[in-house]
Amino acid sequence: MTDSAFAARETIEQVEEGTQLAPKFDAEGLIPCITTASGSGEVLMLGYMNREALLKTIEIGEAHYYSRSRQVLWHKGATSGLVQKVVDMRIDDDQDAVWLQVDIPGDASCHVGYRSCFYRSIPTGKAADKHLSLEFKESEKTFDPKEVYGDAPNPTIL
Amino acid sequence: MTDSAFAARETIEQVEEGTQLAPKFDAEGLIPCITTASGSGEVLMLGYMNREALLKTIEIGEAHYYSRSRQVLWHKGATSGLVQKVVDMRIDDDQDAVWLQVDIPGDASCHVGYRSCFYRSIPTGKAADKHLSLEFKESEKTFDPKEVYGDAPNPTIL
Repeated sequence: MTDSAFAARETIEQVEEGTQLAPKFDAEGLIPCITTASGSGEVLMLGYMNREALLKTIEIGEAHYYSRSRQVLWHKGATSGLVQKVVDMRIDDDQDAVWLQVDIPGDASCHVGYRSCFYRSIPTGKAADKHLSLEFKESEKTFDPKEVYGDAPNPTIL
Repeated sequence: MTDSAFAARETIEQVEEGTQLAPKFDAEGLIPCITTASGSGEVLMLGYMNREALLKTIEIGEAHYYSRSRQVLWHKGATSGLVQKVVDMRIDDDQDAVWLQVDIPGDASCHVGYRSCFYRSIPTGKAADKHLSLEFKESEKTFDPKEVYGDAPNPTIL
């Protein structure tokens, strides 16, 4: 892995209108990555990549993230088998966010067992003067997380 | 605006499997928000919300963000007219990311003038041993940013 893969960020025109990959990592060295299903367009997850994960994803064409809870490079699907094959990889105007369109086996992604991590909706158009309630949008899990992950620690941080 | 809208984060089961809105803001008080076009599913942008922006979006049903470059509440479209009407608003498993599906007039969103902020692709499957090149995926701007924004400062931070 080498930083020579990335150009230095020198001008706004270069970053916004140019063809050099010059990503901006945040104070923790991470860049957020939106991952959607290539067929349905459904948003599956928001992950984070460090330099190594970004380069591995580019080189191999399968989604790699940096696990903030486990603090390791995370080849998505290494445990669950739900590898994400990259169909298209995009970067945004100021090059501080990545969008992956992926194919996944079984159309499942979320560690809780749902298809998408975004399985609950926040109703809008109401005053937020008391605790707000969520509505479930997926009624059935597509897999049993205990079967897939066993006793692996849950990645959610309170 | 009051924090009584949000529940305290007490257990993983409550956060992942429950119906209480208990969002996790990062060290800067922000939560990332993926915004997609409700029709095409195209990812338009990745924005950030502080507590106020999240609550305004819920109350009014139009996307509000926190502008990190201008450090103000940002009612998307207030300058450009490209208001984002919320069709569906989701939150993810550990409640640290939001997904908005929106309708926008003119199908345009990006301050550079393109439909989506993600108008360039990163080719995959090649070794990252030299500067990587991007490919443009949108060939024409949908509006002229100078006409829409005039002399307003560019939000991109190098």
